[in-house]
Amino acid sequence: MSRKYVYHFSEGGKEMLDLLGGKGANLAEMAGLGLPVPPGFTITTEACREYYRLGGRLPDGLEDEIMAALRALEGETGKTFGGARRPLLVSVRSGAAVSMPGMMDTVLNLGLNDDAIEGLYDLTRDRRFVLDCYRRFIQMFGNVVLRLDHAEFERALTRRKDLAGVVRDQEMDAGVLESVVDDFRQLVRRLTGEEFPRDPRVQLLMAVRAVFESWNNQRAIVYRRVNKIPDDLGTAVTVQSMVFGNMGDDSATGVVFTRNPSTGAPELYGEYLTNAQGEDVVAGIRTPRPISEMAAAMPDAYSRLAEACSLLESHYRDMQDIEFTVEKGRLYLLQTRSAKRTATAAVRVAVDFVREGKIGRDEALMMVEPDHVVKMLHRGIDPSAKVDVLAVGLPASPGAATGVVVFDADRAEALGQDGESVILVRPETTPDDMHGVVYSQGILTSRGGMTCHAAIVARGMGKPCVVGCDALKIDVRERLFTVGSRVVREGDVISIDGASGWVILGAVPVIDPKLSSEFKSLLEWADGVRRLGVRANADTPADARKAREFGAEGIGLCRTEHMFMQADRLPIVQEMILAAGAEERRSALDRLLPIQQKDFEEILEAMRGLPVTIRLLDPPLHEFLPNTEELVVQIAEARTQGMAGADIEKKEELLKKARALAESNPMLGFRGCRLGVVYPEIYEMQARAIFTATAALIKRGITDVMPEVMIPLVGHHLEIRMMKELVERTAEEVSRAQGVRVPCVVGTMIEVPRAALTADEIAEHAEFFSFGTNDLTQTTFGFSRDDAEAKFLHDYIQKKVLPDNPFAVLDERGVGRLVRMAVELGRSVKPALKIGICGEHGGEPRSIGFCHRAGLDYVSCSPFRVPVARLAAAQTALRERGAAAAS
Amino acid sequence: MSRKYVYHFSEGGKEMLDLLGGKGANLAEMAGLGLPVPPGFTITTEACREYYRLGGRLPDGLEDEIMAALRALEGETGKTFGGARRPLLVSVRSGAAVSMPGMMDTVLNLGLNDDAIEGLYDLTRDRRFVLDCYRRFIQMFGNVVLRLDHAEFERALTRRKDLAGVVRDQEMDAGVLESVVDDFRQLVRRLTGEEFPRDPRVQLLMAVRAVFESWNNQRAIVYRRVNKIPDDLGTAVTVQSMVFGNMGDDSATGVVFTRNPSTGAPELYGEYLTNAQGEDVVAGIRTPRPISEMAAAMPDAYSRLAEACSLLESHYRDMQDIEFTVEKGRLYLLQTRSAKRTATAAVRVAVDFVREGKIGRDEALMMVEPDHVVKMLHRGIDPSAKVDVLAVGLPASPGAATGVVVFDADRAEALGQDGESVILVRPETTPDDMHGVVYSQGILTSRGGMTCHAAIVARGMGKPCVVGCDALKIDVRERLFTVGSRVVREGDVISIDGASGWVILGAVPVIDPKLSSEFKSLLEWADGVRRLGVRANADTPADARKAREFGAEGIGLCRTEHMFMQADRLPIVQEMILAAGAEERRSALDRLLPIQQKDFEEILEAMRGLPVTIRLLDPPLHEFLPNTEELVVQIAEARTQGMAGADIEKKEELLKKARALAESNPMLGFRGCRLGVVYPEIYEMQARAIFTATAALIKRGITDVMPEVMIPLVGHHLEIRMMKELVERTAEEVSRAQGVRVPCVVGTMIEVPRAALTADEIAEHAEFFSFGTNDLTQTTFGFSRDDAEAKFLHDYIQKKVLPDNPFAVLDERGVGRLVRMAVELGRSVKPALKIGICGEHGGEPRSIGFCHRAGLDYVSCSPFRVPVARLAAAQTALRERGAAAAS
Repeated sequence: MSRKYVYHFSEGGKEMLDLLGGKGANLAEMAGLGLPVPPGFTITTEACREYYRLGGRLPDGLEDEIMAALRALEGETGKTFGGARRPLLVSVRSGAAVSMPGMMDTVLNLGLNDDAIEGLYDLTRDRRFVLDCYRRFIQMFGNVVLRLDHAEFERALTRRKDLAGVVRDQEMDAGVLESVVDDFRQLVRRLTGEEFPRDPRVQLLMAVRAVFESWNNQRAIVYRRVNKIPDDLGTAVTVQSMVFGNMGDDSATGVVFTRNPSTGAPELYGEYLTNAQGEDVVAGIRTPRPISEMAAAMPDAYSRLAEACSLLESHYRDMQDIEFTVEKGRLYLLQTRSAKRTATAAVRVAVDFVREGKIGRDEALMMVEPDHVVKMLHRGIDPSAKVDVLAVGLPASPGAATGVVVFDADRAEALGQDGESVILVRPETTPDDMHGVVYSQGILTSRGGMTCHAAIVARGMGKPCVVGCDALKIDVRERLFTVGSRVVREGDVISIDGASGWVILGAVPVIDPKLSSEFKSLLEWADGVRRLGVRANADTPADARKAREFGAEGIGLCRTEHMFMQADRLPIVQEMILAAGAEERRSALDRLLPIQQKDFEEILEAMRGLPVTIRLLDPPLHEFLPNTEELVVQIAEARTQGMAGADIEKKEELLKKARALAESNPMLGFRGCRLGVVYPEIYEMQARAIFTATAALIKRGITDVMPEVMIPLVGHHLEIRMMKELVERTAEEVSRAQGVRVPCVVGTMIEVPRAALTADEIAEHAEFFSFGTNDLTQTTFGFSRDDAEAKFLHDYIQKKVLPDNPFAVLDERGVGRLVRMAVELGRSVKPALKIGICGEHGGEPRSIGFCHRAGLDYVSCSPFRVPVARLAAAQTALRERGAAAAS
Repeated sequence: MSRKYVYHFSEGGKEMLDLLGGKGANLAEMAGLGLPVPPGFTITTEACREYYRLGGRLPDGLEDEIMAALRALEGETGKTFGGARRPLLVSVRSGAAVSMPGMMDTVLNLGLNDDAIEGLYDLTRDRRFVLDCYRRFIQMFGNVVLRLDHAEFERALTRRKDLAGVVRDQEMDAGVLESVVDDFRQLVRRLTGEEFPRDPRVQLLMAVRAVFESWNNQRAIVYRRVNKIPDDLGTAVTVQSMVFGNMGDDSATGVVFTRNPSTGAPELYGEYLTNAQGEDVVAGIRTPRPISEMAAAMPDAYSRLAEACSLLESHYRDMQDIEFTVEKGRLYLLQTRSAKRTATAAVRVAVDFVREGKIGRDEALMMVEPDHVVKMLHRGIDPSAKVDVLAVGLPASPGAATGVVVFDADRAEALGQDGESVILVRPETTPDDMHGVVYSQGILTSRGGMTCHAAIVARGMGKPCVVGCDALKIDVRERLFTVGSRVVREGDVISIDGASGWVILGAVPVIDPKLSSEFKSLLEWADGVRRLGVRANADTPADARKAREFGAEGIGLCRTEHMFMQADRLPIVQEMILAAGAEERRSALDRLLPIQQKDFEEILEAMRGLPVTIRLLDPPLHEFLPNTEELVVQIAEARTQGMAGADIEKKEELLKKARALAESNPMLGFRGCRLGVVYPEIYEMQARAIFTATAALIKRGITDVMPEVMIPLVGHHLEIRMMKELVERTAEEVSRAQGVRVPCVVGTMIEVPRAALTADEIAEHAEFFSFGTNDLTQTTFGFSRDDAEAKFLHDYIQKKVLPDNPFAVLDERGVGRLVRMAVELGRSVKPALKIGICGEHGGEPRSIGFCHRAGLDYVSCSPFRVPVARLAAAQTALRERGAAAAS
């Protein structure tokens, strides 16, 4: 008993997508709807898979099935395949379950031979048309099926045109075309040593094989790799009787979108060409006309098309992209599929569909790709502007920015504080540059990958950033960079576009992002559906306000180290670090206290009514000191230049201290709560600043402030216990001193494996968990993020050793397992434990889905990702509901 | 109903150790055996705990119980406490369940007052003796109970001696002593404002409190922290009627070991002093005589003592350390306890006990501490030698070595290859120095902690090493180091002792380690009991042979990177690293192939018949390149000195490449199998070298070679799958080319959390697992070993945030959980999966116990740890058997 490999359109439907491919399934569906579809049948993807399994042989029985289907098709059309009377011509098209536009092969007009052209002439009385079909067929078949060089045919064609003294294809008359056909057949004979196959059945079987083979052509393989489409799906083959849009001025071919794919506006959008076949549109020889003009030119066909569009949209519950042909005034539909659209259009279409009663809200929510809408949430270059692109780097953080070039963080900060727009340009950034980043409009680096320091920081702050732009040769000393022979100096104006990676000379007009009213509606619907809370990672009052505007329900991660980096604080921070003992350290901390307090007051006030999770100091202290290598160079130069001994000694002292703090693996070093355990006075100062800020706000009548203190890098329950005692004691002291009861909530990051493995012990001392999945991914894989990106991760993904960059998409199998363990262990001792995530995965849709399934309470992401997260959280809730209903 | 706080000796026994403390329990035990013990009673540790729980108040009922016990003691001895006739004197001694020698307080001769001294005189007719007892008592009570300054009493005593014109205490006659007693009482009155307490019951209760209080004196707290004794055990108090060794020449006091504590020889060993009390022995005023002389001097007491020793040894099934007093020819035993002994003695005693039929082999195995015998396994300084200790550093790797001072690795290698004994002296070592380490006898550094690079490498190789010796000021340029004003130049001879941390000027006589015949017997018994296999980590044929000699059953980790470090290979390795493309790289690899092959041939031959697990290249490539900071200095100097541009450019090129390879966190960087995935040709070369070596041996008739190829740092199953395919393909090729079937076994390290979390997937492609618990500990905790040791781990242990250094003792709760998961997951898909450990924990007894319980097949450790592991593995098996029998 063999499988069924061939389905007539009447036997298929859109639910058979996997078996019949997108094209075959939708043609069958349209036929079932009674729409005018030229009859045909589809050979299944299973046949293709079997073909490969058999090492490139058509499976047993397939040929018989095809021939039977062909006979049925002859009956249906009243035509004969290869017949001299009413010949049946067919198209043979590829079509996988996943759209791979243009990647695989197609043969049109198949069935023509010397007999059939006579029959076709009888039908059409148009010799030129018939011969044109024939030469096109031989050329296409020769190229696609016989794998002959396209250029050989073009050369032969050109020679004939030269002989005939014509320039354009359309100018060839029947006589010329007849010679072309002869030449083409000779060409085939010469190149293959065989005659061009006359038997249309042979032609068909050869074409089917060729389409199967095209599944594995180079560009299809690359396309699948890029788009992460599995290699083992295979393609279906649809064989359909030909209709001709090139049978006169009452014939046409075209493409229509049921709505405007840019804006989503409810209007037919597309173009058509009279007296033409599809390939003419592609070739761009004649300029197609906008679809709206068809209403006047071909009113009948147009109104039928409009009806079909409306019917298909309602039927598919989605905006469609339709190919059609008009043959002598009669409309035929050749393909329909879900239409590609901009994010703006996707949102508008989804919301309009609900308003039009076509779909419900839940369905609308599922129609918009969360990743897609990211693009709507950043400032972008006005698409109508002319720009001078200097170079292209990696698009690290979307958004466009214009400003003067500045080569160091101090100057960036100075100019930025003066209100100047600045683009900070560095070979790469380090945490030392943070204060400059804060005051810049955009960041541009010549080194680094998508997840280098600059990229991460910029994304976190929603600032445009282009990295790894290695065409830039930066000379920091001379304060200029060159691109080829062009020189850009400090103070020159450039623009960057972090969505495209463009570096542009001069200013560009920039468009502000805004949430359209449709998008707002969609997000409100999402809020009604999702179970996950959505917070934002924000370190400044400005970020906090942006987060609120985008719908964040609190701050999930407020980093305090950025506050340490600003120019007025860094010297005090360095003094604290270099302190000889606890007393000297405490004196520096005393001066930091009021500054930190002010920071916290502003953020807490901006987020009143919502929780603000403040993480105590996390990075290793040496990040606040100058670079040792620079010091070494300075000392070496000073020595050889005979500088005064005392000056050298001073530098050597600084170097000694920086060296003493330097670490082999800072990521795994003296940071996080390890600082708090060894120097409790640092964390105590921070806790005091938080609680004093809280008390001050309460005294000012702002009583709904909700600080939450988060201890980073906990790996052992005694760490959190000790730190919690410290924070609680400080809250107690502040409450007493200020005469106001301040709320004290203490929780921990879960960001090293040991924390997850012992989450039950840790939960005893924590009121909340927040997964720091950036670090957790680093430690679980043993990947240093900086090093992995630059050195081997690219290779890993290319060689398919890893499916995704685990820093972008949470690794469910490994890191996710630790997350699930921690949730389970934590709740086993504290059922009401609040659990969130504040790693960058918190803004990534697939990872958000995982967070939902793992039972987290909220995700926290950069402010610009908040709408994305709201939508993704709703979708995952809907998917879960769907799965529950289905089971 | 109150608890019972006081136990008469007849009510106790050695099984009541926790309640009565070591001293009380053993006195009761001896009394029960019918041995001559002065009667007495013990106040329980529970009373002490209750005392603290009540905030420093004697628990209700305790006083009554003490008085009742005292009355019973009066009845038993026929004496009266404080009585003018036959006065009862007692000692009041501390005694916890765990021995804390000398840490807590004792009061002797308690019960004396003006009445009692008359009674005592009636009994002894020795006025001088009585007054001497009295003044000693006041002094001791004043110091211990009343907390008066010892020096005050000494000053008063000295004044009296001066007045009397005597020098030594014994020279004071009764008259002088009477004045001393008067002075002491006045002193007490002056300092406390009160009379010295006359009522002996009051004295006793005060003394009991004082002993309780001494549990928390400073030195006891420190001692407990150092020895990891819990703080909440409390001490018992033993009250015992006094006997006097100072009642004439037929009286004596002494200490005896039942065997020689240095050698374990079966002879009484100890010393005694006639006409003396215990404190005289301690004071060292008179020189005690060896116990053997007592046989002639006090034959009767001696023979009773010998009988008691024999009886106690058999009864306790262990060598004892006994305190005794002879009062007027009559022997009294005052204490017995398990005797401290050297490792040599411990082994000999255990084996002799079996031979004497005292205990069985299993019991003997449990008598020797595995950690203790480490000391027997290294070369040591002849203890009889006179040495000039220059400085003392951290004892990082035991053993003694003598050689010429050399300040860089290249020269160390050159001299070492010429057969010179070298001590490599560096501020600290890096992997760049490996080739020098290989050819040195010992390593000395001025920086670094117990787990710095030098320490780890040296321990791994069993080489003596002293680190962190900061008294050394090393000037590498001048090729000398100074210690204070002393200067040691390159070429001078020094010695180091890695067990004591000593740095010694000149050569010292060194003694070779050997396994005594007793130790060999013990280890053979261990082999019969243990379930865990024991392999060694060995990288050279010499190490391999040493491992075999010590009983290793294979090599569990043969690192191949050390082979890359040697001077003849490093340039080729660097060439490979700097190669522009795969071809250039392959050319360098082709030259490395025969060198590696020879390495493997030698090791495989040395281990014939046993498995040899060879780990493919693991460290990041930049470890093979020069240090970037040094290059930077060279370039800066060259620039200011106007060196030729071409030379500078060359250095800059090298710097650029070294920088490109430099990593932020090399521990988590481009290393392990990541090298193999990105540059398959490196691993292929290594696999080819292994299999070609194997084939060569087989062809030479050595057919029992068992190489196992180990892939490092696997975190994803596709990594091991890809690497396994590569290795198997190479084995296939070598088999074909050589015409010999080579065995191909491929397994993986489990050293990042993700590997453990996905061990089921990984096990599909691995024939064995080997836990790399050094790295697994780093990634699970998020601790960089180098950084943690230097920066915060010490603080963590001091503040009790961590119980142990997790790099020394495996963290069962966190890292151990991952190990157990991996074992379970791995065996769930491959029940026969071979699982071992090759981290340093594999040689640590407690961690070995964990490995046994977690179901591992073997541990692998440094060759010198192999006997330790054999013993520890046997002990853990015996403990398990004991637990099973008990349940």
